[in-house]
Amino acid sequence: MTTFTNTRTVRIEWGDCDPAGIIFYPRYFEIFDASTAHLFEAALSITKFQMFMNLEFAGFPLVRTHARFHKPTRFGDDVTVESKIVFGRSSFDVEHRLSLKGDVCAECSEKRVWVVRDANGALKSHPVPDEVLAKFRT
Amino acid sequence: MTTFTNTRTVRIEWGDCDPAGIIFYPRYFEIFDASTAHLFEAALSITKFQMFMNLEFAGFPLVRTHARFHKPTRFGDDVTVESKIVFGRSSFDVEHRLSLKGDVCAECSEKRVWVVRDANGALKSHPVPDEVLAKFRT
Amino acid sequence: MTTFTNTRTVRIEWGDCDPAGIIFYPRYFEIFDASTAHLFEAALSITKFQMFMNLEFAGFPLVRTHARFHKPTRFGDDVTVESKIVFGRSSFDVEHRLSLKGDVCAECSEKRVWVVRDANGALKSHPVPDEVLAKFRT
Amino acid sequence: MTTFTNTRTVRIEWGDCDPAGIIFYPRYFEIFDASTAHLFEAALSITKFQMFMNLEFAGFPLVRTHARFHKPTRFGDDVTVESKIVFGRSSFDVEHRLSLKGDVCAECSEKRVWVVRDANGALKSHPVPDEVLAKFRT
Repeated sequence: MTTFTNTRTVRIEWGDCDPAGIIFYPRYFEIFDASTAHLFEAALSITKFQMFMNLEFAGFPLVRTHARFHKPTRFGDDVTVESKIVFGRSSFDVEHRLSLKGDVCAECSEKRVWVVRDANGALKSHPVPDEVLAKFRT
Repeated sequence: MTTFTNTRTVRIEWGDCDPAGIIFYPRYFEIFDASTAHLFEAALSITKFQMFMNLEFAGFPLVRTHARFHKPTRFGDDVTVESKIVFGRSSFDVEHRLSLKGDVCAECSEKRVWVVRDANGALKSHPVPDEVLAKFRT
Repeated sequence: MTTFTNTRTVRIEWGDCDPAGIIFYPRYFEIFDASTAHLFEAALSITKFQMFMNLEFAGFPLVRTHARFHKPTRFGDDVTVESKIVFGRSSFDVEHRLSLKGDVCAECSEKRVWVVRDANGALKSHPVPDEVLAKFRT
Repeated sequence: MTTFTNTRTVRIEWGDCDPAGIIFYPRYFEIFDASTAHLFEAALSITKFQMFMNLEFAGFPLVRTHARFHKPTRFGDDVTVESKIVFGRSSFDVEHRLSLKGDVCAECSEKRVWVVRDANGALKSHPVPDEVLAKFRT
């Protein structure tokens, strides 16, 4: 089973917060989506943009997600996002744990599918390429 | 058991969509968050802003959410969001079903807590006021 | 000179507002961008998505914008956006005026370019098609 | 005349981009708003959150802004934002220049007002405190 973990720091900004003064939760999903892209970048050493150029790849759309919110965060907070991936055949799961000074504030799990374009340009699921998996095993 | 359903139509805009041409999924959570506010407005006949003014109320932060994405939507789509609430004592659950021309595209469940400010200004959970529940029973 | 005006109502949502309790101003630009799309939809009777399908059209990117903010708006406000277009040859100007109960809260001017894809797929400016201009003259 | 310049790097993310594959321009204003906050943080050595706690300060709302877009940016780009402030008495101007590999892609000017809360909690403009200006002069 191929797994891989990436950690990054994200600043919560004024514009991410709502009238209660805390983060507006859809912003967490923006952070998690970017964290999944950064995890691939850490393993593959290319950006998501370059993945479209260099790989048999047309995206990894989200199939389902589950998130729990334990403690609020607010503008000025530098939060840590630890993201762990586990690969299936044509899909993969990512677990994100967002924490502030060691306290877990939010947790999120994602199920995503690797897709390519068929001859007509339509998106269809496809096994994650071996060259991709190999980079995650290193 | 007090339940209530509200339905509204939302236009998916160009700026809600990503380079794949389909909705960027964090925008769904913006839609669902607003749909919960609109559900309360439908039952109480006051906006969320007026809820802060007129009720013992300091928000209904999200504790957890689960979403499944079945079919993509894209800019120009007028989607239907059907939202159903079920109340507990100090919390409530909302189920959102987002569909396009009868096809369910996304489903989301939310668990939220009714909060008020204590004497020090801190947020704490509080039973949903009877005057609120009464409006949902009508 | 071809001009055309469209008016629509937009609800300011909780998630559009910042910790000051008022709209976070980048949300105004989301509203204005959508208002330009709705203005074209009002004139052409097709959505922006259908414009890509049916017209020689690859977008109308913004070249410059200027905005003034007179009064804040907040969640629960139903604001009126009046958008007026004036066409040049390959470009056009849109003036948006956003008001609440008759008070102008924000004004924005946009200069946009009509673009098409050349043989290599690159974007280039192009005269606004006559069939488009004709619809605005009706 | 007190001036100060701050430079930071920002990653353009997938979710910042629209179906044309390039940044959706309201995201630029989110970047510029955060860049103004980071400029103050660089000068004052406290976050915007701490400014609310420690200073006579209730925000610096935008009065007007002007932006020009020269070249598009796309997901995976690490752009440089150089922000320069010039203070007036109760207001200040910020010029942002966003560039990629030395090419200027977008420019934005902002006029903002320093506000405090009066005895009734209403926002009113106020001279920028001397202790703030002093930090920018260092």
